Amino acid sequence: MAGSKGKVCLAYSGGLDTSTILAWLLEQGYSVVLGCRREEGSVAIPSPTLAIDEDETQRSRINFGIAVSPLTKYMRHTALQIGAEKASRVRRGALLEGRPVRTYYSPRSRRQFPRLTVQQNAIYEDQYLLGTSLARPIIARGQMKAAAATGCQFVSHGCTGKGNDQIRFEFAFYTINPEIKVIAPWRDPTFYNRFQGRNDLLDYAAEKGIPVTSTKAKPYSMDDNFAHCSYEAGMLEDPNVTPPEDMWTRTVSPLKAPDTPLDITIHFSKGLPVKVVTPSKTVTDSVELFGLLNDLGKEHGVGRVDIVENRFIGLKSRGCYDSPGMTILRLAHISLEGLVLDGRVRALRDNLSKQWSELLYNGYYFSPEREFLQPSLDHAQLRVNGEVRLRLYKGHAYCLGRTSPEKLYSEEDASMDSLTTFDPSETSGFVTINAIRLKKYGLQKAEAGEKF
Amino acid sequence: MAGSKGKVCLAYSGGLDTSTILAWLLEQGYSVVLGCRREEGSVAIPSPTLAIDEDETQRSRINFGIAVSPLTKYMRHTALQIGAEKASRVRRGALLEGRPVRTYYSPRSRRQFPRLTVQQNAIYEDQYLLGTSLARPIIARGQMKAAAATGCQFVSHGCTGKGNDQIRFEFAFYTINPEIKVIAPWRDPTFYNRFQGRNDLLDYAAEKGIPVTSTKAKPYSMDDNFAHCSYEAGMLEDPNVTPPEDMWTRTVSPLKAPDTPLDITIHFSKGLPVKVVTPSKTVTDSVELFGLLNDLGKEHGVGRVDIVENRFIGLKSRGCYDSPGMTILRLAHISLEGLVLDGRVRALRDNLSKQWSELLYNGYYFSPEREFLQPSLDHAQLRVNGEVRLRLYKGHAYCLGRTSPEKLYSEEDASMDSLTTFDPSETSGFVTINAIRLKKYGLQKAEAGEKF
Amino acid sequence: MAGSKGKVCLAYSGGLDTSTILAWLLEQGYSVVLGCRREEGSVAIPSPTLAIDEDETQRSRINFGIAVSPLTKYMRHTALQIGAEKASRVRRGALLEGRPVRTYYSPRSRRQFPRLTVQQNAIYEDQYLLGTSLARPIIARGQMKAAAATGCQFVSHGCTGKGNDQIRFEFAFYTINPEIKVIAPWRDPTFYNRFQGRNDLLDYAAEKGIPVTSTKAKPYSMDDNFAHCSYEAGMLEDPNVTPPEDMWTRTVSPLKAPDTPLDITIHFSKGLPVKVVTPSKTVTDSVELFGLLNDLGKEHGVGRVDIVENRFIGLKSRGCYDSPGMTILRLAHISLEGLVLDGRVRALRDNLSKQWSELLYNGYYFSPEREFLQPSLDHAQLRVNGEVRLRLYKGHAYCLGRTSPEKLYSEEDASMDSLTTFDPSETSGFVTINAIRLKKYGLQKAEAGEKF
Amino acid sequence: MAGSKGKVCLAYSGGLDTSTILAWLLEQGYSVVLGCRREEGSVAIPSPTLAIDEDETQRSRINFGIAVSPLTKYMRHTALQIGAEKASRVRRGALLEGRPVRTYYSPRSRRQFPRLTVQQNAIYEDQYLLGTSLARPIIARGQMKAAAATGCQFVSHGCTGKGNDQIRFEFAFYTINPEIKVIAPWRDPTFYNRFQGRNDLLDYAAEKGIPVTSTKAKPYSMDDNFAHCSYEAGMLEDPNVTPPEDMWTRTVSPLKAPDTPLDITIHFSKGLPVKVVTPSKTVTDSVELFGLLNDLGKEHGVGRVDIVENRFIGLKSRGCYDSPGMTILRLAHISLEGLVLDGRVRALRDNLSKQWSELLYNGYYFSPEREFLQPSLDHAQLRVNGEVRLRLYKGHAYCLGRTSPEKLYSEEDASMDSLTTFDPSETSGFVTINAIRLKKYGLQKAEAGEKF
Repeated sequence: MAGSKGKVCLAYSGGLDTSTILAWLLEQGYSVVLGCRREEGSVAIPSPTLAIDEDETQRSRINFGIAVSPLTKYMRHTALQIGAEKASRVRRGALLEGRPVRTYYSPRSRRQFPRLTVQQNAIYEDQYLLGTSLARPIIARGQMKAAAATGCQFVSHGCTGKGNDQIRFEFAFYTINPEIKVIAPWRDPTFYNRFQGRNDLLDYAAEKGIPVTSTKAKPYSMDDNFAHCSYEAGMLEDPNVTPPEDMWTRTVSPLKAPDTPLDITIHFSKGLPVKVVTPSKTVTDSVELFGLLNDLGKEHGVGRVDIVENRFIGLKSRGCYDSPGMTILRLAHISLEGLVLDGRVRALRDNLSKQWSELLYNGYYFSPEREFLQPSLDHAQLRVNGEVRLRLYKGHAYCLGRTSPEKLYSEEDASMDSLTTFDPSETSGFVTINAIRLKKYGLQKAEAGEKF
Repeated sequence: MAGSKGKVCLAYSGGLDTSTILAWLLEQGYSVVLGCRREEGSVAIPSPTLAIDEDETQRSRINFGIAVSPLTKYMRHTALQIGAEKASRVRRGALLEGRPVRTYYSPRSRRQFPRLTVQQNAIYEDQYLLGTSLARPIIARGQMKAAAATGCQFVSHGCTGKGNDQIRFEFAFYTINPEIKVIAPWRDPTFYNRFQGRNDLLDYAAEKGIPVTSTKAKPYSMDDNFAHCSYEAGMLEDPNVTPPEDMWTRTVSPLKAPDTPLDITIHFSKGLPVKVVTPSKTVTDSVELFGLLNDLGKEHGVGRVDIVENRFIGLKSRGCYDSPGMTILRLAHISLEGLVLDGRVRALRDNLSKQWSELLYNGYYFSPEREFLQPSLDHAQLRVNGEVRLRLYKGHAYCLGRTSPEKLYSEEDASMDSLTTFDPSETSGFVTINAIRLKKYGLQKAEAGEKF
Repeated sequence: MAGSKGKVCLAYSGGLDTSTILAWLLEQGYSVVLGCRREEGSVAIPSPTLAIDEDETQRSRINFGIAVSPLTKYMRHTALQIGAEKASRVRRGALLEGRPVRTYYSPRSRRQFPRLTVQQNAIYEDQYLLGTSLARPIIARGQMKAAAATGCQFVSHGCTGKGNDQIRFEFAFYTINPEIKVIAPWRDPTFYNRFQGRNDLLDYAAEKGIPVTSTKAKPYSMDDNFAHCSYEAGMLEDPNVTPPEDMWTRTVSPLKAPDTPLDITIHFSKGLPVKVVTPSKTVTDSVELFGLLNDLGKEHGVGRVDIVENRFIGLKSRGCYDSPGMTILRLAHISLEGLVLDGRVRALRDNLSKQWSELLYNGYYFSPEREFLQPSLDHAQLRVNGEVRLRLYKGHAYCLGRTSPEKLYSEEDASMDSLTTFDPSETSGFVTINAIRLKKYGLQKAEAGEKF
Repeated sequence: MAGSKGKVCLAYSGGLDTSTILAWLLEQGYSVVLGCRREEGSVAIPSPTLAIDEDETQRSRINFGIAVSPLTKYMRHTALQIGAEKASRVRRGALLEGRPVRTYYSPRSRRQFPRLTVQQNAIYEDQYLLGTSLARPIIARGQMKAAAATGCQFVSHGCTGKGNDQIRFEFAFYTINPEIKVIAPWRDPTFYNRFQGRNDLLDYAAEKGIPVTSTKAKPYSMDDNFAHCSYEAGMLEDPNVTPPEDMWTRTVSPLKAPDTPLDITIHFSKGLPVKVVTPSKTVTDSVELFGLLNDLGKEHGVGRVDIVENRFIGLKSRGCYDSPGMTILRLAHISLEGLVLDGRVRALRDNLSKQWSELLYNGYYFSPEREFLQPSLDHAQLRVNGEVRLRLYKGHAYCLGRTSPEKLYSEEDASMDSLTTFDPSETSGFVTINAIRLKKYGLQKAEAGEKF
């Protein structure tokens, strides 16, 4: 009987899977709170980088529309069909107690993540910009807020049992509330043995009165958010199959991109993008800025990646991603860091960035080890100030130049023609002393009769 | 008096700088052996990766024409003008004793290096493919062979005192022969104070009868070899100046590249490229193969990089590089590794690759630490077998698919639809156990009143 | 009915736990092969470091008597009581088919492991010398040989569900035979809910006719092998309780150690100990050698460690260890490496050693990532040749001196008094060039008004 | 003529070497300010870890008496003999202008360093506790304050040209004031060719009226400070010579240590020792506390190390160190960290500690890379609170137990007997999922016919 087993907060998208899960949870005797994205308003989430970010208003606007969808009319309708007594854009306090299904909107503010990944030059296995990885902990945090506000003992999601996302969600759940119980239907034999294919789901939908828009299933699965869109599974499981051109939703084909390149300038403050200038406009609002780069990248076909990656659970998986804005920002950020970061700081930082990226990928955003790495990573960005000029053209971005108020780079010093700040004879000692070890090694090899 | 101070092997290009140095060394009382690149023939150099490379004939053909030029008619003429008694394509044994200047040809075989950097995914500061870095130890080794064969007590080069190359050369010199003495004129005050600009060199050339072709000086310096061409200094010292379009010699402008993409396939064996298939031909010879990728990359404008990098001596420097073949090979190699390398091996290997790359950049190719890293890096390549399909189009290369006889990737396993090889309920335990630590952390934060 | 479910190879110690498991497996319908340690004879196990070890006869003798006990008369009696039709020291071929219980002896050769950990300076969390960790993969390999030889579909062990050992065993099982099925009774609710305490086990023993020697239970658990003895659980779970003096079995109390120190010499070849010289004898056999160091260390109270460590599953655990031989060998090996390893090789190697140690601790000895690290680690030992003089005295070992035929260390070079091989003025250039970056940093700080 | 070349701040010990340098600098035409340690008073130096240290009064008392000696009567006399017009314990403002020699006292506050190295578990090449390395940047900072206050254009020191200290000093000099000029007499041929041995120095002393106490030269050199005493050179250059028993000044021989062990307790707050309790007293003042541990360690012979280490310049060098207090504190700190640090934080932190230690050893305390590492290292100490019980006995320290208000360790969780907080069946999933990769590897090996 609905509610007898306790209350579940379900991350709800309104689609066939989560609608089925909703009906199934009710059938199992749970009452359900739907976690959806709130469309309006904004909730402040404490930023892990506040300490170095004086301009919080600046950073507080990037909003990632992630897989958990906003509550639409259709979703409300669906929920009512399935058994919800009421489903509306209520505020937290308006949630009615005692009903088996209620809706809840997770906070919309996902501001710091994409920028954090840009600041860290975060990348996984040389190519993946972590667009999905960064969304998961934010959704999970929102869902846990909803669960807490509505007194849920359980949280649930529609992730499969083979992927990374289940882990990313659940690590965040358990960290945020170690007492929470997780219901993962796609790992529960009573669920997955009952629903073995799309037809089982459709039959159940018909039985339960779940309205299904008969869209033709894509031959792959997608996950879209403000940062990127990912594609995997289905036909993509053969790593030698080239993705169909119409798969990519966030980038036009480079072959169809404009014949004229576009030159833009991106300004950074403490490693964060704060202004984008194009021939036709200038934006400084962080949401607008990221949206603009997504639009420009899309138009010029920038940001497609096709990789076979290593999932946390040890399986290999082929994923395709288009991340136009992130790709452009990464190039810009790296180009500026070349100018302003000390060389050895960069080398050490790159090690930490790699570890940070692996943690994010594996679902450890909320973890003591990520928290441990953050202060030094943040410190490295304090002087990443300046601007980078870029060209976008048919699938690729190019750095055209960069400038900064920071003074680590000196034309005078770097110049091969100038000796005013540099006495080249000093380098002899540098070479000789560093070669002390090498000479020993050379003698050792010679004595052993080994050749170079 | 010529010869009284001993014998020097000079890395000789025939240009204004090294011709001046040649004349100056004679003037200082040295006799000189010119180290040049031999045009014909081939000298076997023991490969550091022989142990894992069964097909030595395959690998033994890549020949890097590096900065040290082959002895041309012009160079011979120049040398004779300057004071050489004889300068001809002599074999080692034919070198005449007792003359102040002799010519010597360094071996032409520079086969293993570009492939080694491909095998290691070697890259410096996220962007530079190390085209110059890999050439230096090979030239140095050849020059030291020449020096040994001709009984030189000294070696000399024309590198500036601010760059990386002087260090790369000299570390190799000292390792190969710890007794060798180095003459670095551009670090010697008696030389650099006397020749303070191009005019001083031209005056000296006139005085010494050095023939100078009056080519207009480029507003930047270049260094070209089989792997890439680099550009730096001069107008490029302002990191915000966009390089002039006509600077790039190894890639056409992406804007002028063909409107039709080119799809090719690259085959790898143990991490080394062994076959390239294009719509019109198939090549397997390693030199041809690399040359072909350079040509195709050039035609499609693939491989331009513009960075500010951190030199070993601590200066920052702006460098531009076009490396068409290397860029294509790197993408292909990474794409194949995704399919065939175990995930944790890859993570560990990437750390070693980064260290290997820094060693190569800093001139430590011949060093105990590079030698230490090599066996594990080589081991990781044993199963990097398969082929990668790529598209080249207007400045960028794309992976279209990859396949391999190795079986680490399994469609069956990866498939979201298949549960035959996988029991998803197991993942619950994986999550729960990994979350033990995280729950403790969550409790700790809660107790301290800290929020996520 | 016995045997109807298939055949299980059980790691059998003859104690209450594994005897209970044996009876329970029979009760569940399995037939059982007992994996025990063979007392006599020796089975060759291919060494992972053969490539660098020319003296296989030398290394092939160290024999670790690990937790899996030799088949004793008592064990045979017990097995017969429980239901074995026959239990004797049979050879593989003599195993009788069709009986529910058979005995099998796992190979006794555990030679390479302790030496491998010495070669790698392996240590976990600064203190634990990995004595248990190294034994587990060897036992597991032996058990899998037994399982394969007797056609078992299952393997079983008596490890608890909270420890590291279950993981170390099972990772090895699954790697060696991915088809094997594991029965872990202490993780099976039908088992652990039935046997909730020692009394339940005793009752079951009485019921099944399992002979139990009524030894008083220790207030902690122990695990003893040739490398060390570990103590944990029970009273040790309070990390502030000092272990009772009579707990330590492998070391006398430092307070009771001889008043006279003992000076010994250990000789190494390629990082492996090959000779130990004491005032009274010289041993070169590897088993004798290690045994002698254990004896000497025990007598002088060397090698006690008491730590709180981090288990792989995320729990913290307090462990006490006494590892006399390993402690002495580690000090000797490190002391020699200081003399003969290049400094940068050592720094890089230390990173790999740390990763290697974590892999061993976490049960990944048989893994692609451990295999990846091995070649470089082995390479680093090629020149670790020489001898180290040590003093043992009341709980501690001291290095008194070391010498080597390798020539990386030079008294002439190191001497502050000698300038014959060194021109100190060169160091000025070394400092100046390395300070280029630092001066920039200093200027940056000064400009920002920050002080040192 | 004295003063015509400018003003030098010389780090002055009053011994033969620096007295000779003082006279020589005057002879060369410099005026000299003597940098000595001030005996009384205290100067606040901003702590790099202030952010995490709320109890500044607590930390602000540790005072390291380092190699630069306090100005003694004898030193004043010596300086006057050599040519000083006045040498007295003046305050900064009292320094008289226009005299060729003046004295200056470097600040006495060296508080944060030993504690920093304890907090970081800093250690070099597994054994050296960095007692000299940590003193150098503090002295250098003090000397630069003296130089700035007295308008010196130069600084000078008596370090040899082969050691680490010259580099540690000069890196700090150049970072703190990039314009400073360094005079390093032992790297200046005009100096070291003139003074080739002790006799040359004695002759010069006689000539210049430098008073020399005819102490018999030790057969090794020593460097003593509050943290430790180091011994090197001379007879110690043979790495097989056992140091003479009377060499060690900071520890009694373990053979002569008391027959009765001493048990003490050390309390930590945020990784810093804040209280030491012995049977006879309790100290909380940081200077007293460290001094007490030095005394207790000395009495019980704890903290002797004898190693061959790798100097930054590439030479190997044999060093002996006795660091009683540091040795005890390191064991205590590590023992507490086991109890309170998250396991993965510890693994990541240990990597950073190793890099931090290498930076300190190589003279990079004041550097952007050390500054980069600090915030994360500091963060890791926030919860290192608790107390550790230790036993000191005849050369060694033992951990007897530890306790903490932090709750990462749980007896309930760790207990093998308790299942209330843990469901052991979960571990099966953990093992199975982690084994996915391993099974693939096993299959691959089997297919290739390779055995484990």
